[in-house]
Amino acid sequence: MRMQIGAYLARRLVEAGISHLFGVPGDFNLSFLEQVEADASLTFVGNCNELNAAYAADGYARTSGLCGLVTTFGVGDLGAISGIAGAYAERVPFVHITGIPPLHAVEGRALLHHTLGDGGYGNIGRCMAEYTVAQARLTPENAVEEIDRVLQTCWRERRPVHLQLPSDITHLNIEVPEEPFRFALPQGDAEQVALAAGHIATRLAAARSPVMILDSDADRFGVAGQIAVLAERCAIPCVAAAPAKAVLDETAPYYLGGYVGGASRPDIRELVSQSDCVIGVGLRFTELNTGFFTHEIRPEVFINLQAHDVSLAGRSIPAAPVGAVLEALLAQVTPSSRTLPARPADSAASLPGEAADRLTHATLWPRVARFLKEGDVVVGEAGTSNTALLGTPFPRNSHYISQPIWGAIGYTLPALFGSQLGSPDRRHLLFIGDGSFQLTAQELSTILRHDQKPIIFLLNNRGYTIERLILGERSRYNDIANWCYADLPRAFDREDRALSLVVETVSDLEQALKQAEQADRAVFIEVLLPEMDAPDALKRFGMVVADYDYGPQGPRNASMKTSAKKG
Amino acid sequence: MRMQIGAYLARRLVEAGISHLFGVPGDFNLSFLEQVEADASLTFVGNCNELNAAYAADGYARTSGLCGLVTTFGVGDLGAISGIAGAYAERVPFVHITGIPPLHAVEGRALLHHTLGDGGYGNIGRCMAEYTVAQARLTPENAVEEIDRVLQTCWRERRPVHLQLPSDITHLNIEVPEEPFRFALPQGDAEQVALAAGHIATRLAAARSPVMILDSDADRFGVAGQIAVLAERCAIPCVAAAPAKAVLDETAPYYLGGYVGGASRPDIRELVSQSDCVIGVGLRFTELNTGFFTHEIRPEVFINLQAHDVSLAGRSIPAAPVGAVLEALLAQVTPSSRTLPARPADSAASLPGEAADRLTHATLWPRVARFLKEGDVVVGEAGTSNTALLGTPFPRNSHYISQPIWGAIGYTLPALFGSQLGSPDRRHLLFIGDGSFQLTAQELSTILRHDQKPIIFLLNNRGYTIERLILGERSRYNDIANWCYADLPRAFDREDRALSLVVETVSDLEQALKQAEQADRAVFIEVLLPEMDAPDALKRFGMVVADYDYGPQGPRNASMKTSAKKG
Repeated sequence: MRMQIGAYLARRLVEAGISHLFGVPGDFNLSFLEQVEADASLTFVGNCNELNAAYAADGYARTSGLCGLVTTFGVGDLGAISGIAGAYAERVPFVHITGIPPLHAVEGRALLHHTLGDGGYGNIGRCMAEYTVAQARLTPENAVEEIDRVLQTCWRERRPVHLQLPSDITHLNIEVPEEPFRFALPQGDAEQVALAAGHIATRLAAARSPVMILDSDADRFGVAGQIAVLAERCAIPCVAAAPAKAVLDETAPYYLGGYVGGASRPDIRELVSQSDCVIGVGLRFTELNTGFFTHEIRPEVFINLQAHDVSLAGRSIPAAPVGAVLEALLAQVTPSSRTLPARPADSAASLPGEAADRLTHATLWPRVARFLKEGDVVVGEAGTSNTALLGTPFPRNSHYISQPIWGAIGYTLPALFGSQLGSPDRRHLLFIGDGSFQLTAQELSTILRHDQKPIIFLLNNRGYTIERLILGERSRYNDIANWCYADLPRAFDREDRALSLVVETVSDLEQALKQAEQADRAVFIEVLLPEMDAPDALKRFGMVVADYDYGPQGPRNASMKTSAKKG
Repeated sequence: MRMQIGAYLARRLVEAGISHLFGVPGDFNLSFLEQVEADASLTFVGNCNELNAAYAADGYARTSGLCGLVTTFGVGDLGAISGIAGAYAERVPFVHITGIPPLHAVEGRALLHHTLGDGGYGNIGRCMAEYTVAQARLTPENAVEEIDRVLQTCWRERRPVHLQLPSDITHLNIEVPEEPFRFALPQGDAEQVALAAGHIATRLAAARSPVMILDSDADRFGVAGQIAVLAERCAIPCVAAAPAKAVLDETAPYYLGGYVGGASRPDIRELVSQSDCVIGVGLRFTELNTGFFTHEIRPEVFINLQAHDVSLAGRSIPAAPVGAVLEALLAQVTPSSRTLPARPADSAASLPGEAADRLTHATLWPRVARFLKEGDVVVGEAGTSNTALLGTPFPRNSHYISQPIWGAIGYTLPALFGSQLGSPDRRHLLFIGDGSFQLTAQELSTILRHDQKPIIFLLNNRGYTIERLILGERSRYNDIANWCYADLPRAFDREDRALSLVVETVSDLEQALKQAEQADRAVFIEVLLPEMDAPDALKRFGMVVADYDYGPQGPRNASMKTSAKKG
């Protein structure tokens, strides 16, 4: 059958499970956007800028599955590229489609706007190739093959892919297959899968104190349910690295808490270091996951279930994807008589602080913890918010969105928009600092424009507190402008749909939480906090980072030496 | 002598003429920022995000000379990269310094935040190399040589350069030269310069109707003064491509107007096509400069004075930089008896429209033209603003900032901030559409925080009008949220320093201009305009772009064919 190239691309996107495309229009993508508007199964969602659009696509994909990102050539691509790199780092899949100049201009090396004005058209693709797992420049001749290859790679690798669509070929008709494409995760090689599962089953049966450490792949490859069954049946205690926060039910008896290497809670640190069978699920030994490389995991007892292979005491078993291996493992393991280690008792039921007290992190987060409810999607910005939320117990079926590896401040506000667009029936809460908010603040307008109803906590501590804790506590570069944050929802939305509040005391907060609970509208709460107040974990973290980043001759160690001399 | 590496870099930056660094702090650049704070000759200026910081650096460099941009690794670099690419395309020089992870982590391929989590540290540098003319990763061993090489290349090529500064080497002491570095433009080879100047002088002497076409290099290489003298002495009429708007005194008798190939004013089009000696100054044959490649310039009469060489009827004379060639040329040309062609009379002195009329582009711009005064810096955003300003006569000593080649919407607001920071004594005016404003709106807060006093015209025409003129006049993707723009200055600034106005009629505008003239504070004027109203030049442009971008099978041609059939 014959179809227009752009319409066929739209059809394949829908077959891949995509219903939403984020982005910003530009002359080179308008002809494709016309085809998107004509396709009842696809919706284009405009963002304020391309970086925000990429973050929105990322947030959407984390809760609601594959989506797309549409930009225009050059300016749009490079505007979005940090968000694409973040999705690559964090293994979040979306399809990036760039409307590029017409093929005749590209091939003729015409000097056009949105280019470097030198006739080169390769630079954008080379940059995108650093942060995507498949790329193609579509032509009428290659479109059928390349679209399938690139979309299937996105599905398989759970990372962004990039398609360049010349503006003058969108409406050309080509011969395309009638049958839909079946996008699926690879199942691996049956014998390899059986080999891996057998090895692990043997190890588990012999283990005295096994433990599982989850990383984000447990979420991205959809195996949290299998892990839960395995943990329950075999009485395997589980811990989660920061990128896997809330992937498991945190109220389940097998869930012990977060894992951060040597900086973990003492019982967890000891459990892992003493374990005779440590099963990682996509575990990456980042500084964050390992507490700055202070983890103690004996290589000979370490098994890592990875996207497409298993690493077993340092030996790799390829063609053994995590889902298939877990399935095979579950088919052969028998219930264990081991008992799960006890968790430390939860902190006291009474909440710290008096009603008239100025809010601090110590009084804020226990109230947040009590406010969370089943099914919530919680979005935590880098800095004080993410640090505190990692230490906050989450209710069942909750979901946590953060960007712990790429760690781009400002990510969470557009990600909130994207996630809520894909999962409108779940309550969404965002915790974001003032410094981070300023990077992407305009996307609040998109949230309100779509009549979304999140609860946004803007933690105003007057600057980059996480950086003040690392270096430059009183340096001017850590200062930012103090906006009238609570006035922004109204300035961004002529319909004034949001409830906007400022809280400074414990009772302010408690009152605001009650209002938020009942409001059937977006709620924006500016939380005034002391400038240098931070969760305890972050205060400890600052000196560790300074030491790692700047070394023994660095300014913080040097000034400590000077202070010591003075003292 | 011995100096800390970061302090030495700061010293060299100052020697290169740099006094301001824009950017956003992040843990990998804090140790360098401490050294910047300690250097009385350098000021770090924080922006809301990295893209805005790059635009601010670009705007600064266009009016005030070299400056710097400081980001943190990965997230900061890729956040800024579109602004860096824009500076590359438009030939605007600044020094981009990235605080990167400590050398021990880079060499050990440690898995850190702000990376892809795979141990790779080369991807960022590879992307930056696409958009900078020199790059180096500094080490204690190479810092002395690499800093000078990279900074000198920035000076020479008038384009961005990139330095990676590992966070743990900033405070290490190395042996450095005591003498300052002399940054300068190359003077070329004297014989080549004489050869080129001689050729041009001969051509000019024989020419019946010579003409000069300026492009942005005339500004970037500081030769506008020499061109003016040459034009005056030899009676050579001059026209300016869009990137060279207002580089010459537009009131001078030798200045005829703007050049856009076949879309130029008829007298200019004919002058150029009939000329027997066309001298370009860095002329690039972009679609913008040539009216979509409709220029008629005979190759055998075309001379192009380029940064480092002269192209003479297709033959290249290297080592003949534009400034040196013009100097040699001026030393040998004699006054001409040619008469300059007459310019068409300026439009009528009376202004169109009645007081109560709703504002349109037809009534707005003549009033803007009358409002401009000597010395103004005018910043024009892509779309209706830039199109109208290109057709507006500018007063003497005015300066025009736009980004015609890279054409990233949102560029101008941060560029305004940068330019005004470097040239605080000049009046600055910005004209920006609502769609563009939304991309980088938060930088308005930085403008107010620094107590700058620009006059900002926010043209609210409810969406991407330039795109509606190309395709999708009624398509939803061209709609945007309608913010309460006039409330933003107050929301962004607790001190409420700006005067904020909304104008809808001719008399509103005239009243607002009077207030702006007298206000000793920032002025923000929201100008309400009909959705599909645009300068005439832009209306014509829409169909040309649609035809070029989407071709004969494209949706606009196709729908026209359908309409024609229906009719």
